[in-house]
Amino acid sequence: MSAAHPRLSLNQATIKYANLAEAVDATLLAGYESIGLWREPVLEAGLGRSIRIIDDSGLRVSSLCRGGFFTMEEGPSRRESMDDNRRAIAEAHALGAPALVLVAGGLPAGSRDIVGARARVRDAIAELADEAAAADVTLAIEPLHPMYASDRAVVSTLGQALDIAEQFPSGVVGAVVDTFHVWWDPDLAAQIARAGDRIASYQVCDWATPLPSDVLLARHYPGDGVIDFAGITAAVVAAGYSGDIEVEIFNQDVWNSGYDAVAARARDSFAAEVAPHLS
Amino acid sequence: MSAAHPRLSLNQATIKYANLAEAVDATLLAGYESIGLWREPVLEAGLGRSIRIIDDSGLRVSSLCRGGFFTMEEGPSRRESMDDNRRAIAEAHALGAPALVLVAGGLPAGSRDIVGARARVRDAIAELADEAAAADVTLAIEPLHPMYASDRAVVSTLGQALDIAEQFPSGVVGAVVDTFHVWWDPDLAAQIARAGDRIASYQVCDWATPLPSDVLLARHYPGDGVIDFAGITAAVVAAGYSGDIEVEIFNQDVWNSGYDAVAARARDSFAAEVAPHLS
Repeated sequence: MSAAHPRLSLNQATIKYANLAEAVDATLLAGYESIGLWREPVLEAGLGRSIRIIDDSGLRVSSLCRGGFFTMEEGPSRRESMDDNRRAIAEAHALGAPALVLVAGGLPAGSRDIVGARARVRDAIAELADEAAAADVTLAIEPLHPMYASDRAVVSTLGQALDIAEQFPSGVVGAVVDTFHVWWDPDLAAQIARAGDRIASYQVCDWATPLPSDVLLARHYPGDGVIDFAGITAAVVAAGYSGDIEVEIFNQDVWNSGYDAVAARARDSFAAEVAPHLS
Repeated sequence: MSAAHPRLSLNQATIKYANLAEAVDATLLAGYESIGLWREPVLEAGLGRSIRIIDDSGLRVSSLCRGGFFTMEEGPSRRESMDDNRRAIAEAHALGAPALVLVAGGLPAGSRDIVGARARVRDAIAELADEAAAADVTLAIEPLHPMYASDRAVVSTLGQALDIAEQFPSGVVGAVVDTFHVWWDPDLAAQIARAGDRIASYQVCDWATPLPSDVLLARHYPGDGVIDFAGITAAVVAAGYSGDIEVEIFNQDVWNSGYDAVAARARDSFAAEVAPHLS
């Protein structure tokens, strides 16, 4: 077992086909101290059993992915979404995850009203904030790359996420800085500095072109693309973020590889590209 | 022959496989009064012959696409690019195009320094500004969608384009508002208002998902996607833009269709989706 950087966390989506026990094993074997969980494999294992697996592993849980998807207008499906988000907050609390990652959701079918959809994201977070505070779980709004604005997340920039987060107490609502989603932003340095203690999660993976035919799977190991991890990491450190840092890669080739090999390569790419800029 | 809206222009890239004479014929047949030209078909026909074709047609030229691609470091290839941009300015002047559209270019091979690449865009424009002013051609910086930031254009938002443009006299350097590229921007309304007379071109086409495997070809007729043409067009009008408006669609299915049918459909979709918001 090699040691991983003490702040490094393996986001479970990087080894998407592993069940929770397999993901924990691969994470431990590669020397990580932390793991980022997803609700689907947690619920597949059962919440109680998942908690035992995590407790027995000694791993920290860096975040739970994900809540959100609440851009729809008021009605039964919005109520279902809010109920599901309340369950996600409770799960994050039970798992000891400090943050619940929120992906806003895209435009409702047939709608062209992105301004309205964005307002409903803010309203949904207002509805959830008290429960999140009571559960000691930070609602971590994740701005997604603008190429996902119509079908996945109408929150497209860190500045936009902070405009929402700042309407609520620090520690209750924050934002995710995921290099893949924000690296292109001309205003990134200023917004990371502005974020300060609103940074609820820092996630790293790389951007490379050409994009694959499914643009959701366009992520790469740090160092395999064009992102300036030195500059972004230094900015995140200067903003005061001291939590775990997740490697999160959606990539079919990575998913088709062995879990242990992926965990090791993510660890090593982090050591080469990100860790040197953490102190 | 049906009448098109008097401000409507057919960007030649919408019927990419037409030579200049064919493009002019299709544009006239569909009742347009204006055409947006590309350098490649103009130079294929020859500049002198192209000028005669345009003069004989009675069409206005709304813009010439495109200059730019000047993010590289100083050296022979940067000098080649600057020379090519000077020729493009001269061509725009000769063709009577009020604006030369500039696509910045992506990251140089092997570079992760997007901040540096962006600075070199500004420097290139500074080098060209006097010649553009003398030629009475506005350098129109086109912010491209952030999904093209690494390989095509490091200028990603209207605000960023205006930050550059405002360093030069109005009329010499401006920005393109292309709905496809900017529709997702949470700051769009404010930046269009800020732009005022810096808007050098307004281009319309629609965004829809899933994206095609070549994301350069993801554009659609207005009305076939999710863009709020009412809101964006009203903002552009309120900012004072009174020039021609181009329909510019890169889409393999559109390119595979007959030129006359495409010109007619672009005209009709403009009449339905954009024209009602112009007064």
